Amino acid sequence: MAKRVLVLNGPNLNLLGTREPDIYGAETLQDVEALCQRTGEEFGLTVVFRQSNHEGELITWIHEARQTADAIVINPAGYSHTSVAIHDALKGVGLPVVEVHISNIHQRESFRHHSYVSAVAFGVICGFGVNGYRMALTALAEKLK
Amino acid sequence: MAKRVLVLNGPNLNLLGTREPDIYGAETLQDVEALCQRTGEEFGLTVVFRQSNHEGELITWIHEARQTADAIVINPAGYSHTSVAIHDALKGVGLPVVEVHISNIHQRESFRHHSYVSAVAFGVICGFGVNGYRMALTALAEKLK
Amino acid sequence: MAKRVLVLNGPNLNLLGTREPDIYGAETLQDVEALCQRTGEEFGLTVVFRQSNHEGELITWIHEARQTADAIVINPAGYSHTSVAIHDALKGVGLPVVEVHISNIHQRESFRHHSYVSAVAFGVICGFGVNGYRMALTALAEKLK
Amino acid sequence: MAKRVLVLNGPNLNLLGTREPDIYGAETLQDVEALCQRTGEEFGLTVVFRQSNHEGELITWIHEARQTADAIVINPAGYSHTSVAIHDALKGVGLPVVEVHISNIHQRESFRHHSYVSAVAFGVICGFGVNGYRMALTALAEKLK
Amino acid sequence: MAKRVLVLNGPNLNLLGTREPDIYGAETLQDVEALCQRTGEEFGLTVVFRQSNHEGELITWIHEARQTADAIVINPAGYSHTSVAIHDALKGVGLPVVEVHISNIHQRESFRHHSYVSAVAFGVICGFGVNGYRMALTALAEKLK
Amino acid sequence: MAKRVLVLNGPNLNLLGTREPDIYGAETLQDVEALCQRTGEEFGLTVVFRQSNHEGELITWIHEARQTADAIVINPAGYSHTSVAIHDALKGVGLPVVEVHISNIHQRESFRHHSYVSAVAFGVICGFGVNGYRMALTALAEKLK
Amino acid sequence: MAKRVLVLNGPNLNLLGTREPDIYGAETLQDVEALCQRTGEEFGLTVVFRQSNHEGELITWIHEARQTADAIVINPAGYSHTSVAIHDALKGVGLPVVEVHISNIHQRESFRHHSYVSAVAFGVICGFGVNGYRMALTALAEKLK
Amino acid sequence: MAKRVLVLNGPNLNLLGTREPDIYGAETLQDVEALCQRTGEEFGLTVVFRQSNHEGELITWIHEARQTADAIVINPAGYSHTSVAIHDALKGVGLPVVEVHISNIHQRESFRHHSYVSAVAFGVICGFGVNGYRMALTALAEKLK
Amino acid sequence: MAKRVLVLNGPNLNLLGTREPDIYGAETLQDVEALCQRTGEEFGLTVVFRQSNHEGELITWIHEARQTADAIVINPAGYSHTSVAIHDALKGVGLPVVEVHISNIHQRESFRHHSYVSAVAFGVICGFGVNGYRMALTALAEKLK
Amino acid sequence: MAKRVLVLNGPNLNLLGTREPDIYGAETLQDVEALCQRTGEEFGLTVVFRQSNHEGELITWIHEARQTADAIVINPAGYSHTSVAIHDALKGVGLPVVEVHISNIHQRESFRHHSYVSAVAFGVICGFGVNGYRMALTALAEKLK
Amino acid sequence: MAKRVLVLNGPNLNLLGTREPDIYGAETLQDVEALCQRTGEEFGLTVVFRQSNHEGELITWIHEARQTADAIVINPAGYSHTSVAIHDALKGVGLPVVEVHISNIHQRESFRHHSYVSAVAFGVICGFGVNGYRMALTALAEKLK
Amino acid sequence: MAKRVLVLNGPNLNLLGTREPDIYGAETLQDVEALCQRTGEEFGLTVVFRQSNHEGELITWIHEARQTADAIVINPAGYSHTSVAIHDALKGVGLPVVEVHISNIHQRESFRHHSYVSAVAFGVICGFGVNGYRMALTALAEKLK
Repeated sequence: MAKRVLVLNGPNLNLLGTREPDIYGAETLQDVEALCQRTGEEFGLTVVFRQSNHEGELITWIHEARQTADAIVINPAGYSHTSVAIHDALKGVGLPVVEVHISNIHQRESFRHHSYVSAVAFGVICGFGVNGYRMALTALAEKLK
Repeated sequence: MAKRVLVLNGPNLNLLGTREPDIYGAETLQDVEALCQRTGEEFGLTVVFRQSNHEGELITWIHEARQTADAIVINPAGYSHTSVAIHDALKGVGLPVVEVHISNIHQRESFRHHSYVSAVAFGVICGFGVNGYRMALTALAEKLK
Repeated sequence: MAKRVLVLNGPNLNLLGTREPDIYGAETLQDVEALCQRTGEEFGLTVVFRQSNHEGELITWIHEARQTADAIVINPAGYSHTSVAIHDALKGVGLPVVEVHISNIHQRESFRHHSYVSAVAFGVICGFGVNGYRMALTALAEKLK
Repeated sequence: MAKRVLVLNGPNLNLLGTREPDIYGAETLQDVEALCQRTGEEFGLTVVFRQSNHEGELITWIHEARQTADAIVINPAGYSHTSVAIHDALKGVGLPVVEVHISNIHQRESFRHHSYVSAVAFGVICGFGVNGYRMALTALAEKLK
Repeated sequence: MAKRVLVLNGPNLNLLGTREPDIYGAETLQDVEALCQRTGEEFGLTVVFRQSNHEGELITWIHEARQTADAIVINPAGYSHTSVAIHDALKGVGLPVVEVHISNIHQRESFRHHSYVSAVAFGVICGFGVNGYRMALTALAEKLK
Repeated sequence: MAKRVLVLNGPNLNLLGTREPDIYGAETLQDVEALCQRTGEEFGLTVVFRQSNHEGELITWIHEARQTADAIVINPAGYSHTSVAIHDALKGVGLPVVEVHISNIHQRESFRHHSYVSAVAFGVICGFGVNGYRMALTALAEKLK
Repeated sequence: MAKRVLVLNGPNLNLLGTREPDIYGAETLQDVEALCQRTGEEFGLTVVFRQSNHEGELITWIHEARQTADAIVINPAGYSHTSVAIHDALKGVGLPVVEVHISNIHQRESFRHHSYVSAVAFGVICGFGVNGYRMALTALAEKLK
Repeated sequence: MAKRVLVLNGPNLNLLGTREPDIYGAETLQDVEALCQRTGEEFGLTVVFRQSNHEGELITWIHEARQTADAIVINPAGYSHTSVAIHDALKGVGLPVVEVHISNIHQRESFRHHSYVSAVAFGVICGFGVNGYRMALTALAEKLK
Repeated sequence: MAKRVLVLNGPNLNLLGTREPDIYGAETLQDVEALCQRTGEEFGLTVVFRQSNHEGELITWIHEARQTADAIVINPAGYSHTSVAIHDALKGVGLPVVEVHISNIHQRESFRHHSYVSAVAFGVICGFGVNGYRMALTALAEKLK
Repeated sequence: MAKRVLVLNGPNLNLLGTREPDIYGAETLQDVEALCQRTGEEFGLTVVFRQSNHEGELITWIHEARQTADAIVINPAGYSHTSVAIHDALKGVGLPVVEVHISNIHQRESFRHHSYVSAVAFGVICGFGVNGYRMALTALAEKLK
Repeated sequence: MAKRVLVLNGPNLNLLGTREPDIYGAETLQDVEALCQRTGEEFGLTVVFRQSNHEGELITWIHEARQTADAIVINPAGYSHTSVAIHDALKGVGLPVVEVHISNIHQRESFRHHSYVSAVAFGVICGFGVNGYRMALTALAEKLK
Repeated sequence: MAKRVLVLNGPNLNLLGTREPDIYGAETLQDVEALCQRTGEEFGLTVVFRQSNHEGELITWIHEARQTADAIVINPAGYSHTSVAIHDALKGVGLPVVEVHISNIHQRESFRHHSYVSAVAFGVICGFGVNGYRMALTALAEKLK
């Protein structure tokens, strides 16, 4: 049976393609979803793709993933650096997690250098633009086999 | 007339009993609610018991407590360490507050050692498992007499 | 055509006038809204006035402002000190921003001395009580001309 | 057979009731001992109650507890924040430990925010006045069953 | 009788309009004085306007203000970040103080983020260019009524 | 013409497969080289694969890459955290760089959380085991097109 | 009736005159006691002079001073920098305290620059050799009048 | 021949007696000068007494003291905490220096806990009110004999 | 004549052999004393062996060593990290000191990484179990020749 | 036409030759001026040489240099480490600046290791004694050609 | 069969006996090698003795030790404080390691107080001069039995 | 006889003229060597000029300089900020050292602000481009006379 991956996007990612294109590129979140769906089909993964600006909603979706997913790809955006609660949620559900950042957070302001999510993800990808999502799904497909 | 206590639970506590049972124990949040209700009955307290993953919802409930409660027991979970807004809400409503943590946060990662809530609680209990809720209600019953 | 300004209020500001009046004064948020509307009329600005305890809702409103506003006045309250996500939202929409604090945050606890919003606001006003809102709107009226 | 609990009190607690009553309350250490004895009788615990200003004497008593007690309640007072040796002693004897502070140490000077004892206690109670001793004994009675 | 306001300008502000115009704008200190005088007339305030590169001279003028002024507007420029003595002088004379910075100091080097003056000012305005002076006088006119 | 990628491995990676297999896995550096060559062939890249325990030798190879490579994949291992000189070398040659770590460095000792190389790499991959090399080459193949 | 002053000396001061004479001078603790007694007679003070290497014994003497002294002069020596318990004892008894150091602690190792006692002393004297004791008693005689 | 002592007073001390009397007392700088002159006469010292708000003027007076004084008493006030230049001046002239603070600086804001002058003074006196000047002169009279 | 060495043991070492044997091994303090006596006989040293949980008693013994010993071996245990007073005592008596720790303190909690005693010991040995005592005595025998 | 260089000397440099000769050497400021004049003649530079103990006066001279000089050599002495205002003045006038220190500030107290002036100087010379001035002028002569 | 010990010496130790003899003593590295060989013969150990100024060469030798040695004695000299790579190499080969420093590094500059090697050594010896090598070999002989 | 100066260049300086020319200028290392040789001839110095990317090789050359040079000019480049071993080597050989940096390191990333070499150099020159080498040799020629 196809493995299911929940792809979660944190705050402000709904602006993708219009917000600071020099940092985040010209592709929209719809483009990213299409890319993820294509990649999922290629590797036989069922992809569910969501975005929220609410920390609590992201946490609730992570909880639901215990029933509905085999792995999580998460771009926590601004919550990466401040949310112990998302860290706890990911640790609590115990699914394999890949953290993705579109930009290379290590080249930006120092408050973006630490992510609470990294400590509960098995792998971290940053700086490859939206291609990072494809890399994450490809790596998960390998791992979930 | 019976004193009313609002028992608030922060993010991920809905997973209780299933999430990291070596840290948090096997009891579910329903068990905790039952324990609180029994304790309330024993001491003549009306207990309202709530959980949310949303920082904003917790804040709104704290605000409402001005009309509907005489004291607050709060387990802020992951928001303990990051939420100035919950600190402000508790300070703003001016009710007596007891902070409860199921695990001993001082024996875990260093980012869990500081809680913004401690500065606005009159008492703090941690490490006694879910029994901490009972201890908190018992102490409040005493105080509210 | 009249310039439009979105006036955003963060968590706990709905308690204004009742919460810690020695710090925040006796005026309610309704008083502040009336003050903002009067100031808007005086300077020919259309003012939309909102408050939320939810970080995610504030972010969503900031996003909508791209279509519906020419500038933002924001009192981020407790989220000032912890929200990278609001910082990102304001930076992403690219409108002129004025940050207002009712109290002088530099005279309070040290965790209130730093605001993530200041780095994306063009101007910051603090310590003038609710009059700070009027000052912010007056300054924006000048700037938007 | 009745379980035995050693209740240890650190430096300056012999001044209780006369020293800074706005912080520590009006009850004397004799009152606290009576409270502990009453609680012990109620729960079938044999309580031994001691106070010393000597770090070394406290350590020796902790050592002796290996033979003479089943659990320890300790209010380390000023030694909480500086004594690695008491930390070592408690860790060495391996009995269950509850740490009690009469005041909420998180609301006082920053040098009182960290306690070396917390890392070797299973539970911590602070801010409930002398009632914290009763809470600690009650929790231990439960645990020792 | 007209209220009197002393407007003090710290080191290098005599270069205004010629020094780093991208940060400080094209207006000269003479323009700022004219703006302050006009604003004073509008609100019935007597404005005295001074600039010095000497920390000691600024302190002496602050002392004199006890006899000759009802409030102080100060742009301490480079002394904001290093002068305990100006902090002490302002605290010593006890007049209401508004601190003004032409640029948004929170967007510049980190050594400009802290000001010793903020702790003794009732309000702080930064980032509005020379208009900040007008805003300060307007706010003082309101306050001194 | 085929694009050329230099794959550089830092100190101790010659022990791969034998050293701390719970952290680094069972594959040897020869396995990794074979994986990289296979991936190169798949994507039409010429791969040169090297390992050195000498910081100076790594720097010299980076310099040579200006003539002989179109991109660099580097696993700087222990030098990640201490070498300003490798940072300078990579910055000096100006080729696109991908940084790879076999383990998730954010889950290990705190001195491994910062890498001087991240600031000069366009992308960073960590925690995917030796598969990270394949991911890096795949991403570069895409970028170099 | 003569005012009574307890002069307390902390650890190692019994070595005075023999230990590191380039720092502490050639006078012995007996010489210091004689100096204090002479000064006491001159100003009509009853002086009790004690030394202990035991933190606990010093604390006990401070407690006793509530009954037997009107003021305390203390040279806490090595305990200055680590003893929260002596800080608490002095704060608890509420007598006026003068802190004396024979050497200028601000010119020695950095771990000697902070003293927990300074926060509970009304005055601090350091660097005047054993004459500091005489200065302290003289100042107390003045204050106790 | 009479020994000469220069008594230097830093910024804002000209406000003495009127500024924050709860901290600094009711005596004016004229009172302090009279106290110093009386003390000088008592011990056969020629006292020169000066105050300036200018760091540079204080430095110049310290330089002149090489010709005109045998010792210096200095209350550097706000410059204590920020002036490397006064530190250098005092070190350069090589006269014995006593540092005096009217209040106990260790009980005030943390930015007042460190003084650059302490490292070049042989003795430090703080917290004894204006009597500290008398204590300093008395100690110097002893030392200069 | 035989050289005399005082071997001092700090708090909790009387528990040796029973406390945390995975860290400290199975040998008791009596075993250690026997080992020290045997080593002393082998090298012609008179060994005096003592343990105390009292910081003050340790200090007093250090003082007495000026008359009764030619060198000191000290395992300060928990006092290593907090006792300026023991540091002062050892510095004051001026005998050669070797510091011994049974476990490798650099591999344990970070608060055990710094020892105040190291700065006054000529040599430090840690991590060799109780054999460290033998190593220390052997090294001293060499040095005292 | 001859290029003009303003050589500025900060506080205490008027003591040169007499103050701490082991650090600063035996040459006086008059010797330094003569050295600068000779160097200026050698390279066709008009040298103006000044010293002040007043931060404000140094700032004023820097301002005047906009009209009267083509470059500045500055030895800011004690103000190097504390003066944001001199930093701002130098940045404001925009002339090429060389910073000179007679001693090697990196080998002295840690508070001398950072200079606010270095960030606005194009070159820094320290540790060459008064020859540093000659080196600075020589380098400027080259640059101004 | 004889146990084999690799004795490794880091950078600058080839200068031993000529470099800073007040810190490192008069014996040369040849003397140390002879001492190690004699000690090895005495205890039946085969000693291989090497020195390198190259971090990479030291790492390579550590790797080779997996085949050729049963234990390692290492004096990492200047690399102690900066080399994560040597830490990794020692951890990777998994042999028992003793760290030796000729001088007491805890009494020197603060950048010498931390060693990356201590965390992977089972024992640390410092301050005993070249005798530390003999102590290390003696301890290893015991351990390898 | 001609004095001999060893001019050492650290990692990446072989790229000079091609690497980041906006920071390091257009001159190559060959140009710098020619400049140094010309300067040497002018002042009667024999110049040996070397570059290495290997920390160990630089250390070895420093050692050899004891026999073959009278002074050292060193541009340690990236090793400035991380190499305790080069610091030790320079200190060990005891020759006069001048440190040169082509760019002004105080205007770049904060990790470049501290150099371990500065503490063992008598003089430091930075920001004068390759002319800094000429300045260093000129200053040494003066010093070695």
